[in-house]
This record gives sequence, C-alpha cells and structure tokens, in this order.
Amino acid sequence: MKDIVRKLDRAFNPRSVAVVGDKRETDYMWLRSLARFQGKVYSVQIDEGELPGIEALGVPNYRSLLDIPGPVDYVIVAVPRAVAPQIVGDCIQKKVGGVMLFTSGFAETNTEEGIRLQQIITDMAREADLNLVGPNCVGIFNPRIGLRHTVDQYYGDGGPVGFISQSGTHATFFSLVGALNGVKVSKSVSYGNAVVLDSADYLDYLAEDDETRIIGMYIEGVRKGRQFFTTLRETTRRKPVLIWKGGETGEGTRATASHTASLAESPRIWDALIKQCGAIKVSSMDEMVDTMKVLLYSKPPAGNRVGLAAMTGGQSVVITDAFAKEGLEVPLLTERSYREFASFFDIIGSSYRNPLDISSNMRSLGRIIRCLDILSQDENIDSVVAELSVAFWTRITAFIPGFVDELMHELSLFKERCDKAFIAILISAHVETAAMEARGRLMERGIPSIPSFERGARALKKVVEYYDWLHATTC
Amino acid sequence: MKDIVRKLDRAFNPRSVAVVGDKRETDYMWLRSLARFQGKVYSVQIDEGELPGIEALGVPNYRSLLDIPGPVDYVIVAVPRAVAPQIVGDCIQKKVGGVMLFTSGFAETNTEEGIRLQQIITDMAREADLNLVGPNCVGIFNPRIGLRHTVDQYYGDGGPVGFISQSGTHATFFSLVGALNGVKVSKSVSYGNAVVLDSADYLDYLAEDDETRIIGMYIEGVRKGRQFFTTLRETTRRKPVLIWKGGETGEGTRATASHTASLAESPRIWDALIKQCGAIKVSSMDEMVDTMKVLLYSKPPAGNRVGLAAMTGGQSVVITDAFAKEGLEVPLLTERSYREFASFFDIIGSSYRNPLDISSNMRSLGRIIRCLDILSQDENIDSVVAELSVAFWTRITAFIPGFVDELMHELSLFKERCDKAFIAILISAHVETAAMEARGRLMERGIPSIPSFERGARALKKVVEYYDWLHATTC
Repeated sequence: MKDIVRKLDRAFNPRSVAVVGDKRETDYMWLRSLARFQGKVYSVQIDEGELPGIEALGVPNYRSLLDIPGPVDYVIVAVPRAVAPQIVGDCIQKKVGGVMLFTSGFAETNTEEGIRLQQIITDMAREADLNLVGPNCVGIFNPRIGLRHTVDQYYGDGGPVGFISQSGTHATFFSLVGALNGVKVSKSVSYGNAVVLDSADYLDYLAEDDETRIIGMYIEGVRKGRQFFTTLRETTRRKPVLIWKGGETGEGTRATASHTASLAESPRIWDALIKQCGAIKVSSMDEMVDTMKVLLYSKPPAGNRVGLAAMTGGQSVVITDAFAKEGLEVPLLTERSYREFASFFDIIGSSYRNPLDISSNMRSLGRIIRCLDILSQDENIDSVVAELSVAFWTRITAFIPGFVDELMHELSLFKERCDKAFIAILISAHVETAAMEARGRLMERGIPSIPSFERGARALKKVVEYYDWLHATTC
Repeated sequence: MKDIVRKLDRAFNPRSVAVVGDKRETDYMWLRSLARFQGKVYSVQIDEGELPGIEALGVPNYRSLLDIPGPVDYVIVAVPRAVAPQIVGDCIQKKVGGVMLFTSGFAETNTEEGIRLQQIITDMAREADLNLVGPNCVGIFNPRIGLRHTVDQYYGDGGPVGFISQSGTHATFFSLVGALNGVKVSKSVSYGNAVVLDSADYLDYLAEDDETRIIGMYIEGVRKGRQFFTTLRETTRRKPVLIWKGGETGEGTRATASHTASLAESPRIWDALIKQCGAIKVSSMDEMVDTMKVLLYSKPPAGNRVGLAAMTGGQSVVITDAFAKEGLEVPLLTERSYREFASFFDIIGSSYRNPLDISSNMRSLGRIIRCLDILSQDENIDSVVAELSVAFWTRITAFIPGFVDELMHELSLFKERCDKAFIAILISAHVETAAMEARGRLMERGIPSIPSFERGARALKKVVEYYDWLHATTC
C-alpha cells in the first residue's frame, strides 16, 4: 500500500464520524448529512440548548471528543474559529484519522485574528502529522458509505469520478449536476485553505484509488507546487485529470484571496503546467461535466475529424461553425459514402456533403440511422456528432406514434455497433422539460448528450487532444 | 410613407392569405398555422385527394389563385419545385402583395434543374416587381394578426423585436425560445435563398416599423451588399441591430451553400462591417436572446465597470473570472462603500471587496438587498450583477418560509430604484425546474436573468459596447 493511501484511508473511508459544534441555527446540517452514513456517528457539543435537538436526531452526544469511546476516524468541525485550536488539539490527542474544518474566518478574511488562528492550527497539525482537511471547506464525500456534506447528495452507488475542489460550492454542485448527467462521484474532497493537506496529497490519493477512473480538480492555488507537478505528471498517464483553475484573471485572483487565501499564480504558468502534464484544462463547471461525460460514455476518438448530422439546414450551418471554430475538422466524405447517400437521400430541402442536413429525411427513422451509419463507417471521419431535435420529435410523433421510443432503441443499437466516438447534441430550446427527459433516456443508453453545439465542440476537442497526448506519450 | 413600407406593407400585414399546395403528408401545416389568422384564408389545391382534408379545416378551396374572389395580400406556396414558376406567374397576374415559397430544391441543391428553376422564378418576379420571399423558407410571422409559420408560435400580443433570418429553423426557434425569455417578436421573416427580396429590404422595412424597437438578424450571405451596408449604418442609430453570421468558418460556408446557396464572404469583412456600422455581433441563438434580454430589460450601462455579487465563495471567483475574461472591469469599491459594509457585513465565511461573497449573510434578505444597494450607489460601478442561487433558496426556505416570495418582491423594488444596469445570473445547476420557474418570476418583474456567468458577461459586454458606440456617434 502506498504511503498516501495508508495515510488518508481512515479519513476517506471512515467507520466512525464525530461532528463537533453542530447547531439548530443551521438545522443540524452536519448530523443530518450523516443520516445514511454506514458507520457510527457521534456528536460533540457543550451548549446545553443544543442537546435536545441533537437527541431528537438519535445521535449520542459527548462533551468532548476525548470522551467518545473507541476510535474516531473522521471529525467534522463546525465550531467558531476561536475554538478551533482546542478541537484540533483534541483531535491530535484522540489520534483521529482526519479532521475537516468547516469553520472559516481564517487567513481568507485578511484579519490579524484570522491569520493568527490559522497559523496556530497549521503548526499544531503539521507537528503532530494530523490529517487536517481545510479549514473553510466541506470536506469529504464518499457516497458508497453515505459520507456526505449535504442531504441533497446521493448515497449508495457512486461513480468512477474523483473530484478535488478548493470550493465547497463547486464540490457540492459538481456531485449534483454531475449526477443529472451520468457523471457520478467515487470520492470527492473540498479542502478550502489547504493549510496542511493540499491538492497534491488528494491527487496522489485518488490516483491510487481503484474506484476512481477520472479525476476533476477545481484549484485556486497550490501550496505544494513541486509535489503537485510530479504527481500530476504521473497520474495523467493512468487516468484523465481535468483541471479548472479559479482565478484565471487579475480580478479573479483577488476573489481567490478572499475565498481561500490563495496566492496569485500566473495563468501562463498554469497553462504550461497543464499542457506539459497532459491534463485537460476546463474553464467552468459545464465544461468539466461535459468533458467527463464524453470521456466516460464515448469511445476514444482516433483523431480530429468529425461527421456532423443536423436535423435542419439552419442548424447544419451552426453546428459546423461551432465545431470548426474549436479547431475540429469537418472534412468531405469519401466517394463511397456519397454514392450511398445518392441512392436514397432526398436532397430537396436537405443535403449531405458534411454537415448533413437531414430535414426532408427526418420522418424516416431508417434514414436517420442510415445517415449515422454512413458517417461512422466513413474513413475520413473519427467522431460522429448528431443533433437530436426534441422540438421536431414532438411534431413527428404527431404523425408517427412511438417515433421517439423507436428512435431511442435504434440509437442504442447504433451506439453499440459504432466503433467511433459518438455524441449527441440535445438543445433544450423551448421544450426544456422534454429535453431533460430525453437527456435521461439517452443517458440510460450510455449516449452522452450535450446541450449546445458550442459546448459539444469544446468537450469533444478536449477529449481528442487528451487521447492525442496519451497516444504520443505512450508510443 | 417610405417606399419600402408601401412596398412590403401588404405582405407583412395581410388581410387575406392563400396557401397553395398544402397537404395531408405534412398534416396541412400551413393551413393549420393560420387557425388564428385575423383575415381571410384561402386554399389552392388541385389534388382531389387533398380536398376532404382541407374542407375539414373549414377553409374554402380554389383550383387556382386566379379563381379567388377579391384581393390576396400574401401567398404561401408549398408546391413541388417544378410547379413553382406557374404559381409565381399566377401571383403576378393576381397582383398579390407578396408570395413566400416554402418550396425548396433550387440552387441550394447545386443541381442543374434546381438552378434553372430558381433563375426562372427570379427573372419573373424581378420583371414584375413581385415581392417574392424566399424560396426555401418559412416567411413572415406577425403575431398581432395571427400570421404564423407553426401552431407552436404565439398570437395576439407580440413584442418589440423584429427578426430577419435566412434560416426557417432559427426564425421559428427564435420566436419560441425568445418568448420563454421575455423576448417577443413584433414581426419576423425567414427568407431562404433571397433571390428577389434580400436582408437589406427587410431591414429597411423593420427600421421603419413602429412596433419594432430592436432588430435581430441571422444571415448566411448578402446579395445586395451596398444597400445592406447603407441601411444597416442608418438603422443602428435608431435601433440596436444584432447580427448573427452563419458560415463564419470555411466549413460553415460549405454548409450555407448547401442550405441557402449563399456565397462565402470573408469573416473579416463581416466583422469590419458590423463594427463600422455599430451593429452588435452575436454568434449563437443563446447570445442573440441573452443580449436582447439585457437590452430590453436593463437600464443602459454607462460604462464598463461591474459590481459582482455571488452567493458563495466558489461562485464569487467564477463570476469574476467570467466577467474579467470578457473585458469588463471589476474595480475596487469606494471607501464609503467599504465603510458601510464594515458596519453590518459578517466576514466570517464571506467577503465584500468586489466581488461580493454573500454566503454568511445570505439568510438575511435585508442584507442581500443592502449589498445590492451599496453596489448600485457606488461611483466606481456602472452595472450590478447578482448571482441568484436557486439551489440555496431551497435550503433557506426550509428555515424561513416565504423567503423566495419576499426576495422576489424586494428585487422588484431594487430594480425600480436602481438607476444602473442590473442583471441576474440564474444557474439551473441540479434544480432545473425550480430555475425555470424562477426565471419566469424574475421576467414578470422585468429583471433579466441569464443562465450562466459566461453568457451573462458576454451579453452585458455587448450591450456596454453598443451604448459606448451610440454615445460616441451621437455626441
């Protein structure tokens, strides 16, 4: 077992968790978040006024961490900042597996008191080799054992995605938005000010984690720069690592300083580091989720050339502009493909040079699928991208009952036999609810759908570049 | 009355419409689209098999346009392309106000037959000065009189937005997506191959239209270049004109050729022309709708400086990066503002340098609104941008019943008294249905909401630039 796994295993896979300082004011959010936790839960609270609320949740309360019988693997601390040093001291004495400080008000406030208190807990934890997560964060999410940071999160079956986030909001939203998109978490950690454990440690840990096949990171600043670089370079050969850097602009770094007391680093250094290490750079939550979706659900694209199928002419222009602007090639097809199209494709109101404008052929399910098959078999094409128009489905279903059900079935079969990358573009337009439903149905069939041409192009381009790099590196 | 208004008035405001060649195969889509039309509707169809279907709709049918008693202002033609010349001849003889050819299969197919037929109808129409819209399009939408191109569109109250689109899909989707976002159409036209009437003519017409305060255009190519330039330059001083150019890439122009037989023009020439004329360049349907929303519902921003309020720390970083990347300034606030913040703002877990991270203060409605007021009164700030987190509202409402209702009310009052530009960012995240509802509630209050930081930044930047240009031009 690698050192880092041994070191962080109790914190990430605790069998007992203690919450220190949970309170009515926040509706006992931490104790509630543990409602599905598979192990033992303890409360530590000295405020008599809070005891009935804690008792009502059925959780045993102690006046001190040290009073808890048996070991404590993971501690969640929600006390005021002035009390933090004392609790950290108790954690050291109790020999806990890890402690996460939800408590904030440290260096990120840029106040003398905050800076002083942060230094105290940092020194204590480092000296004792205590696994301190944070402070100013929401800590670890391990759905398999029901360790969450909000009751909104899922528990039980997780997914293959590790997520490391300096922001609590992004950690929570990533898990929730990801789940809607078929991108579920194996383990995630939000780590705030990173005074002891830093991104490099978590990356090292998740690189070794068998449940984790892809890693996403939201980083505002790195403290252990050299270790981060080394770990990242090693990890990307085994698992794709996506990095979203918060504070990419001068104004943004002012915000990161106020948020997690992170120091400004040059965006150019970051870009170079990400590129050199073969990590995937993303710039928003949407890009993070979209790119992971393509990585998880699409076959690896062998190159940069896309075959585009739109359902109408206007969209055939827009999808082409979007993919070409991202630097993907939209080549002409082989003569063989054109001969096949000529044998059945109605060109009145439609076209098939690449992009395809399927319009007049859209009411024939067989023709739609035949178009996709031709693209997927064309030697000039590495990825097939199809706009699936929910708006038009509704109209077609008026003529052909069951059209969408059959389309879903045929798309499943196509996805199975297609040996190239395949992604769907599913624009919600004015039919948002129907689009949400369709996204779910595609997801059940393992077909990644992206809600705009631009986002689809960006995600596919990133995936193409990752596999290019991987291929060049491992050859 | 300007010549163009006299020329196109009957076509855009018809009192009688004839549909030629509607059929069961398309579920009589054109006759059905006229179900709410305020004037007379006629059908022209010679296929005996179609007559019962037409009769069932209660529309009188004639065997020829020339048989219709009284004048016909607007004709919708859905016949096969080979029959088009004959119908165009009938339109000339009948002296109709305008004719729109839904019929396609002309030069855009790049076939000898298609090119030949297009030349015939073009020559006929030009010689007779017939107002030919298209071919290969869906024509005019005038909601006030119930002239639509699909039953999905609204009728009755329209809005202040004129839309000119070479693509039928974009014309339809713009009306439907726009309506969801409070951006409703006065009159729109989809004009396909533009063989007789071109974008310049429609722009000229809508520039004179009193119902139209903003104009959007989706253009694949321009035939009357000089007229377009002159008209655009004149119009932008009176009304904002947004231009979305389809075929911005080499591959995209291949698609426009197959779609509307448009010729490739250099993207650089387009960029220069748009800039020189003070038009607003957009690159997608989303950008079109977002930018219009800000133009319609926000006060004009006096400059480039934004005050940003996010509900949590992670989002405060991301909103700042997004706005700074678009070239908007995120300045420090005045000392006066900082003094006021210091008097009430809880900095434990929050911050207020600009961006604001409201986190710990979020449960106090009074504090949220006070934050917005400070930003709006700060001399360093031209626009106020607030992230409204639907996800967190849900949690807060658990503690404070009626929180969202009161917030909506307070935001209405703030919007009234705020004399700067104000936009909301409303990310749907994992609470998509709640976000859709919230968007509607904000819209009712005239508060423009945009679904991502990046899109909000882009839309605001375009609006800032437009007013900058307008100010520089009119001074």
